[in-house]
Amino acid sequence: MVRTIALLTDFGLDDNYVGVIKGVILKINPRLHIVDVGHLILPQDICQAALSLKSSYRYFPKKTIFLAIVDPGVGSKRRAIILQTPDYTFVAPDNGILSLAAECEPRFRITEITTTKYFLKPLSRTFHGRDIFAPTAAYLSLGMSPKKFGKPLTTLTRLKLPKPMINFKTRALTAEIIAIDRFGNLTTNIEEKDLHTLKNNFRIKINNRTIIGLADSYAQMKKHQPLGVINSAGYLEIAVNCGSAEKVLRAAKGTRLTVIF
Amino acid sequence: MVRTIALLTDFGLDDNYVGVIKGVILKINPRLHIVDVGHLILPQDICQAALSLKSSYRYFPKKTIFLAIVDPGVGSKRRAIILQTPDYTFVAPDNGILSLAAECEPRFRITEITTTKYFLKPLSRTFHGRDIFAPTAAYLSLGMSPKKFGKPLTTLTRLKLPKPMINFKTRALTAEIIAIDRFGNLTTNIEEKDLHTLKNNFRIKINNRTIIGLADSYAQMKKHQPLGVINSAGYLEIAVNCGSAEKVLRAAKGTRLTVIF
Amino acid sequence: MVRTIALLTDFGLDDNYVGVIKGVILKINPRLHIVDVGHLILPQDICQAALSLKSSYRYFPKKTIFLAIVDPGVGSKRRAIILQTPDYTFVAPDNGILSLAAECEPRFRITEITTTKYFLKPLSRTFHGRDIFAPTAAYLSLGMSPKKFGKPLTTLTRLKLPKPMINFKTRALTAEIIAIDRFGNLTTNIEEKDLHTLKNNFRIKINNRTIIGLADSYAQMKKHQPLGVINSAGYLEIAVNCGSAEKVLRAAKGTRLTVIF
Repeated sequence: MVRTIALLTDFGLDDNYVGVIKGVILKINPRLHIVDVGHLILPQDICQAALSLKSSYRYFPKKTIFLAIVDPGVGSKRRAIILQTPDYTFVAPDNGILSLAAECEPRFRITEITTTKYFLKPLSRTFHGRDIFAPTAAYLSLGMSPKKFGKPLTTLTRLKLPKPMINFKTRALTAEIIAIDRFGNLTTNIEEKDLHTLKNNFRIKINNRTIIGLADSYAQMKKHQPLGVINSAGYLEIAVNCGSAEKVLRAAKGTRLTVIF
Repeated sequence: MVRTIALLTDFGLDDNYVGVIKGVILKINPRLHIVDVGHLILPQDICQAALSLKSSYRYFPKKTIFLAIVDPGVGSKRRAIILQTPDYTFVAPDNGILSLAAECEPRFRITEITTTKYFLKPLSRTFHGRDIFAPTAAYLSLGMSPKKFGKPLTTLTRLKLPKPMINFKTRALTAEIIAIDRFGNLTTNIEEKDLHTLKNNFRIKINNRTIIGLADSYAQMKKHQPLGVINSAGYLEIAVNCGSAEKVLRAAKGTRLTVIF
Repeated sequence: MVRTIALLTDFGLDDNYVGVIKGVILKINPRLHIVDVGHLILPQDICQAALSLKSSYRYFPKKTIFLAIVDPGVGSKRRAIILQTPDYTFVAPDNGILSLAAECEPRFRITEITTTKYFLKPLSRTFHGRDIFAPTAAYLSLGMSPKKFGKPLTTLTRLKLPKPMINFKTRALTAEIIAIDRFGNLTTNIEEKDLHTLKNNFRIKINNRTIIGLADSYAQMKKHQPLGVINSAGYLEIAVNCGSAEKVLRAAKGTRLTVIF
């Protein structure tokens, strides 16, 4: 079976960092697929990377190994880990980047990467993606056991994401924009299940605009009108048909919105 | 044989959309090549995507499946189709994105994708690239017949591109810039064959500059001088040796030019 | 064995140039890996490409073929070459792009690509990446001998990079910034060995800021403080922990720095 290694980093595409990591991987295991989940995570934005991983990993083939590197603590004492679920393996710094995906999994095992045997030598101070994480993922893809890389860990560093707050007295759910995509679609921190509780009977207020309920699709709404929709990651999204909600609503990451029910 | 699936979208590289599509494809068929034709088509610019597809598809291996997704009508009644030529297969929304490639092919067959059996469940409202188009392309790459996905169609939605207009009285061909690349090279809507008719004896006027005839290469012209050349897609291109024609000529998409013959 | 072809170009990601090159390669040899070293080299910046190649090629599997195309002289008399070292093969225009990698290799052989037999027909005037370099790399990956493509060459066009200048009287090494990455990290033209000579006892002056000696890692320094570190390519790098040295130090490519020892 040809396994897949999927890469998620904040390395950008201007430099050769991503290419070098792929070279390192293929040097160890030339029989696999390498897929980019993305490399344009904002520099050092662990939260964005954790959300991206959470909303994407289940679409990949079983046995895929995710190499997730947003690593502002490179060279410090932050731990490097392997996290295994029944279906997937993740290799990353232990800084919270894996915690949102891990929350979706009933069980997983963690190994700290400490054995230096598989590291590239000389070990650089600034590029553990190349020297530690890439070879680890590559040897794992050959079927090597995580036990070879170090000892089990019982704790995982967790991210704290802002949660929407409900006020039953004012019948308002206060939330915020946590991500914006290329089309200007705004992802909120409200999940589909939060709205089910509200029985889908509500209006959304954001920057002095009001949106009534949920649309079935972008195209259902008039052109240039804002709408609410459950997006492909399961979150409430504010969009504008044939336009950018970011521009039309002058919204940014962190912009507040209220759902009145 | 290892088949190729080639992706052309306006999804950009900031988000995980393209990565997720690749995950979905590899989950169904792990034995293929996935190649990016490009993901930076301007959001919802069906015309740019159609031109890109037209000028690239014939360079790919026979039996390549093109997944072309620029889909402002996602979730509406716009049709999803499979278009087969003797050598290639295209999977796309039926919004004109395939029409320029189809014009180059003497014969092709179209199937509307209606059978829901192969869709990802639950079907999202906003990401048919992931839920419909990617699995369709992946199953086709396994050798499944288009017939499995729905019924034949006899019509294809066509794009209307601006055509150059010739005036034999004033001996002028009026045309416009339809694309600009990273180097600032300007693609016009004049094809090589249009110039053959003019016997290659002409001058080009654009934004008060005059260019005499065609150059054999960029380097043939003095540095920073504008020149005309037949580009790699077969169109008249206005370029500047070691510079940007876009900047030197202050041109944009839609800028008019005149060929005086 | 599945060989790797690694691509380094200034073609950007906006257009279909890179995708078309991959199509051409896979049409000739469908059994290989194609890896992007990068496509965002600044347009026509041969020096940046040469540095990128130098710092990346050794991380790739043996027998990797590098296709390096930054080619302002396309269509002129500049030569197209194949350069072979014992472990790697490079295909590129002979404009200096290979010269920094070649400096790291004790021996190599060069072949000029002149035989037109393997070129795509019709040969375009502006896209030799597609019509000459891509098919050459693809046929080489099938095991074809470089001899099939033309005659041996004994000279290689060399790049002249600025070298740091040492003044033993003022005990100062004057150098400059030669590259800046996405994180705002500044690569200088000082190599690790230059600093060993200085016995690691020095301070760095850049834009009125002074940095004492070398850090072991980014995280060792206080947040937002500038630091010096040997980067993953073996050069002295000026960085800022959890920030951008480019912004904090208002530095650019060409900015001077002095190492006082």
